[in-house]
Amino acid sequence: MTSPRQGGRRPIVGIVGAGQLARMTLPAAIPLDVEIRLLAERADDSAATMAKHVEIGSPSNLDDLRRFAAACDILTFDHELVDAVALLRLSDDGHVVRPSPDIVGLVQDKQRQREAMARLGLPIPAFAILRDAESITEFAAQHGWPVIVKAIRGGYDGRGVWVIDDIDGAVVLFTEIGATTPLLVEAWVPIEREVALIIARRPNGETATFPLVETVQNDGICRELRVPAEVDATIAAEAKRIATVIAADIALEGLLAVELFIAGGKVIVNELAARPHNSGHFSIEGCGTSQFAQHLRAVLDWPLGDTGLMAPVVMTVNLLGGNPAVDPRDRLPLALTLPRCYPQLYGKEHRPGRKLGHVTALGEDRDETLARARRCAAILLGDED
Amino acid sequence: MTSPRQGGRRPIVGIVGAGQLARMTLPAAIPLDVEIRLLAERADDSAATMAKHVEIGSPSNLDDLRRFAAACDILTFDHELVDAVALLRLSDDGHVVRPSPDIVGLVQDKQRQREAMARLGLPIPAFAILRDAESITEFAAQHGWPVIVKAIRGGYDGRGVWVIDDIDGAVVLFTEIGATTPLLVEAWVPIEREVALIIARRPNGETATFPLVETVQNDGICRELRVPAEVDATIAAEAKRIATVIAADIALEGLLAVELFIAGGKVIVNELAARPHNSGHFSIEGCGTSQFAQHLRAVLDWPLGDTGLMAPVVMTVNLLGGNPAVDPRDRLPLALTLPRCYPQLYGKEHRPGRKLGHVTALGEDRDETLARARRCAAILLGDED
Repeated sequence: MTSPRQGGRRPIVGIVGAGQLARMTLPAAIPLDVEIRLLAERADDSAATMAKHVEIGSPSNLDDLRRFAAACDILTFDHELVDAVALLRLSDDGHVVRPSPDIVGLVQDKQRQREAMARLGLPIPAFAILRDAESITEFAAQHGWPVIVKAIRGGYDGRGVWVIDDIDGAVVLFTEIGATTPLLVEAWVPIEREVALIIARRPNGETATFPLVETVQNDGICRELRVPAEVDATIAAEAKRIATVIAADIALEGLLAVELFIAGGKVIVNELAARPHNSGHFSIEGCGTSQFAQHLRAVLDWPLGDTGLMAPVVMTVNLLGGNPAVDPRDRLPLALTLPRCYPQLYGKEHRPGRKLGHVTALGEDRDETLARARRCAAILLGDED
Repeated sequence: MTSPRQGGRRPIVGIVGAGQLARMTLPAAIPLDVEIRLLAERADDSAATMAKHVEIGSPSNLDDLRRFAAACDILTFDHELVDAVALLRLSDDGHVVRPSPDIVGLVQDKQRQREAMARLGLPIPAFAILRDAESITEFAAQHGWPVIVKAIRGGYDGRGVWVIDDIDGAVVLFTEIGATTPLLVEAWVPIEREVALIIARRPNGETATFPLVETVQNDGICRELRVPAEVDATIAAEAKRIATVIAADIALEGLLAVELFIAGGKVIVNELAARPHNSGHFSIEGCGTSQFAQHLRAVLDWPLGDTGLMAPVVMTVNLLGGNPAVDPRDRLPLALTLPRCYPQLYGKEHRPGRKLGHVTALGEDRDETLARARRCAAILLGDED
């Protein structure tokens, strides 16, 4: 029930990274009188332009991390590109790191993730670690073409994932990157839809799950969130069970986002992230407690908040940089004419494909609400008819 | 539809004052990518401890205001203790001041307020400007004892208001303060309940009103907000009409809070404030758009947001410093165990009677929701049974 330091002083949470996830944490911290400090790589990082306390440094430099941690009660993360070994040193030095360095190491490594899921008996695609192009062929002989090859470390937003159709593709892939990049191969899954579930767990063991969300992907990048996900109750219950089993097993302190495939009427675990997640942005206006407020509560070991929906339907559309002549900031006044639509701009300079923000719409009817969110996003991107 | 400066740059709103109203504006600014700058009197002012851009200066010093205004696109306010003449100079210099210096001057001056309401034919108590103790007696001869005497300038939260029962009381008051303080006298009103309504108006003339709220006062200080106010539809419509008439008459650019008495089944205008207001704190979690987001939209001349309620019942209880041994910051983890309760701490050091924060609860049932909000506040103040 207590944060590490108390007594008429507000707790200080240090976030390694200053992207949009850190930025969206700032509004959640103010009512709770939590001081946020950021370790940013650049002064113009999304959150660094809004936060009061910003240090510039590298998440993979132990000295930078040590200097940063010294001013914080609790250290947490906005991304996974942190040196897990350095985090272990900080933890050994007595700093409170949540989620733990071990969990950060787990989510950085797809092989460790898959092995952990297998050990827990959770549903995952068949997989194998690759050593050469022939081992892809051996795997395909057993599980069929195509296969999915993934970089074990460093991939995200569709990068580091390849669909390989035949032996020729396997040879090309290995020639290009196989010598330097550890890879694993997975059986191709006939995905019907993708869903995600975020669970929060605090050190005392209390957990809370957010509503299951359908995530609509394109080129490996999440484009839309649709809540509630239109799935059978058994699917929703299975997703919650899976997240709860993992959170308990890894002794989660913070948030865990579990990305799931639905295929053949079954749930299959895709990937894990241990931080606020793109699939949880609907919660800012859409839930009684946002994922960012919940993240703070969880790492502070405070009681978790209500995650119930604030409207029957919540739809989120991501803003990906498209027309370079259009800056969403200039289009905001026009976008605000749409009722019950909440644009969230990340304050980033435009680049094609870059996540510049998102729009969440609340409503009663799925089609109308989704159409309204899309219309608002189209206005912001200059894509409207 | 445009802010004063545009083109891939976020607008900069300068707030004169750095109290809790400015503090609660910070979370509203981040999603809209609006930069907030504060003119604070002290570095440990409530908002100054959270905001990135803080200048220290006096709201009554023209040089300080000029230096501050130079870095902002739009100047607005967190309190009324600003030199209205200095604001007029800034406006003449070409700075955008919203609400206008004239409106700031109006809300600073109870005589001007009353005269403006009278001119608009709005319901107000009988009143007169005082020159001496005898003029109180003359007023009472016409309107009966007791009478209400108010300082024309500078009073708030029950300060600067006196109930005078007889000629002896009038003489004492004039002996003590009448020589130095301009005063007005008003007929005593048999108040049945107090309500308040906040209206937003943008320069293009669009207006939006928040739900009518019942304000529960004690010693002139607002203790609770109850939404929706339990009043006849005719009362609610009259409150909205009054606010709309005033906003149009003064060409409001920003927010106007209209405090109203209900007496004898009629609405009577009590006081005006032209900024986010204590009576609107319920809107942070309780409405589709908070008063702070609406204030930003209004002063930026952006479309106003939806003010519909997010739950059937919204109850807010203010946290006034009581037991000096209890710091609400230390009690927060315990308070967060209550469902659908949103504590908002202002980050101020404890003083008896000081506004340290508030709690808003959402619910379905008035009694249950109010009891829950009170319980949460009691935990934070160490007053629970």
